[in-house]
Amino acid sequence: MRLQQAIDLMDPSLDFGIVTKKENIFYLTGFFPTAFAVLVLGDSPYLAVSEMDSILAEEVDIEIRVVKSFKKELEFKGKAGVEKRHTTLSFAEEFLRSCEIVDLKFISEMRTVKDSGELDLIKRAVRTTEDVLENLSFHGLTEREAAAEIAFNLNKIAASAFDPIIATNGNSAVPHHRPSDDIVSSTGPVIVDLGAQVEHYNCDMTRTFTESPSEKFREVYQAVAEAQSEGIKHLQPGAAAKDCDKAVRSVLSEYGYEEFFIHSTGHGVGLEVHEPPRISKDSEEVLKQGMIVCIEPGVYIPGWGGVRIEDIVRVGKKPKVLTRFPKLAF
Amino acid sequence: MRLQQAIDLMDPSLDFGIVTKKENIFYLTGFFPTAFAVLVLGDSPYLAVSEMDSILAEEVDIEIRVVKSFKKELEFKGKAGVEKRHTTLSFAEEFLRSCEIVDLKFISEMRTVKDSGELDLIKRAVRTTEDVLENLSFHGLTEREAAAEIAFNLNKIAASAFDPIIATNGNSAVPHHRPSDDIVSSTGPVIVDLGAQVEHYNCDMTRTFTESPSEKFREVYQAVAEAQSEGIKHLQPGAAAKDCDKAVRSVLSEYGYEEFFIHSTGHGVGLEVHEPPRISKDSEEVLKQGMIVCIEPGVYIPGWGGVRIEDIVRVGKKPKVLTRFPKLAF
Repeated sequence: MRLQQAIDLMDPSLDFGIVTKKENIFYLTGFFPTAFAVLVLGDSPYLAVSEMDSILAEEVDIEIRVVKSFKKELEFKGKAGVEKRHTTLSFAEEFLRSCEIVDLKFISEMRTVKDSGELDLIKRAVRTTEDVLENLSFHGLTEREAAAEIAFNLNKIAASAFDPIIATNGNSAVPHHRPSDDIVSSTGPVIVDLGAQVEHYNCDMTRTFTESPSEKFREVYQAVAEAQSEGIKHLQPGAAAKDCDKAVRSVLSEYGYEEFFIHSTGHGVGLEVHEPPRISKDSEEVLKQGMIVCIEPGVYIPGWGGVRIEDIVRVGKKPKVLTRFPKLAF
Repeated sequence: MRLQQAIDLMDPSLDFGIVTKKENIFYLTGFFPTAFAVLVLGDSPYLAVSEMDSILAEEVDIEIRVVKSFKKELEFKGKAGVEKRHTTLSFAEEFLRSCEIVDLKFISEMRTVKDSGELDLIKRAVRTTEDVLENLSFHGLTEREAAAEIAFNLNKIAASAFDPIIATNGNSAVPHHRPSDDIVSSTGPVIVDLGAQVEHYNCDMTRTFTESPSEKFREVYQAVAEAQSEGIKHLQPGAAAKDCDKAVRSVLSEYGYEEFFIHSTGHGVGLEVHEPPRISKDSEEVLKQGMIVCIEPGVYIPGWGGVRIEDIVRVGKKPKVLTRFPKLAF
């Protein structure tokens, strides 16, 4: 159904469309390739897979062509729609040399609004993540051990959507800190960023903890929490994504922390942990009913540490926060 | 030093070179970006990073430019060398619109031959992997649980290079099987494909086990093991990579199993789990002293199962197998 919808959305002047991004092939066909594969959209759509994927692809409702050598067996001519964000110059040279190339960006756009089946899977991923977070104890562990423990608990029942981040004390001033052999401190801030993946759909959420909140910590936490809830109010159908980012920055600016918010406010989440829409200063996207996004303001103060809070929200007249894990209250 | 070497290797007619692939930026500068970054090669090389990476990048021995908006702040004109395999059509449109574009493939090539520091890290990754494999017990676990256990043990001391594969009975007929909720069987074949990552360098190895080897299992195992050791003999400096693949296929063909070997024979391993050179039928690469490759023949019989054996080998006059974990002997 989504496949036909995508074909109908194609510019009628195109001779065919080409999709190689695995998540998009899965979205349109229900088959998640484990190796290189090419989905060809047109009057007679087909999916070219390697021999390795031939057994797995057997149950899919689209013509499957098992290919021994993509280079030798695939050749395209005419006006081609391709996903320019996901297509390399090499691919274009090898396969599309005789083609006129047009961008095919509607598939990524289709994916931004989640249907009820997708919403259910994301909710399951959220619940799984929150169960793991609730049962987590850092006591005496290093960051690396704590992160390994989280991934283990996620993998046992589902899958870990990405390598969990545990950042303690000064390490928490680095948004993408890689877990180290430092013992997780109980005094400074501890940022925990984690997510389950359930049937290909991801959760991505962050909480910041501390056992003995200093005055400074309370203030930073308060600023981030307030900025987040202000941002979430802007997740309305028809709103500009950048206005949500602006609202977040404006609260942080009141607190004097704007310069320490060194990444964008958020991003869509679904088959990928980070996917459109971007919720950032530069974003030109307009929010739609049913988009699902992560809102993750943070304040990172070199030498001191950081606080980040990330929740998953469904865009709507009344934006719905899907993550329920409690925040700190002082 | 590698940075200067890369600049020296550039075609002198180029105005500059551009590297965005994270592993290649790390290889040349020692800094592994956690977000989008652009390394510019030329008379005054620099690395453009996002604010998020600014603290992490402080210690690097190259000029760092912290960028708020790549789109607004980066602009290139002239004759540009880019890695076409790793550059998207969108990137080219956004940043290189006014450029003449030439392929810059020598960085991937440089990486194929490992220096002694890299060899040491790969050896450490191998030892870590083998320790975990040695202490593994499947007893009563599902595939998913066993795979989670492996990743946990790897993550506690290093990192898991990729999601481990555990494929039991009929599932083992699928090379990239995703661990399921099936209990790991002790009668059929059990394929275990795993690897540690140590300081960005990866191991990738596979063993196939069974508790009660049938006649068929023994024969298939024997064929795969013999094919592998025949292939390894071809890992000589100056040999064509495809001759190794051919040797493997020829042994499997003698056993009547060639049609069940549905992927290529091997690949380089290092900063990436799969990297050049490709050891396949179509490969045009020539092997060099000091390349490090995985040789992984497999036989996959639908309905029955599969056997894959994967070892890491250093190319040399006497090819050196780095993985020492014992194989089955009947």
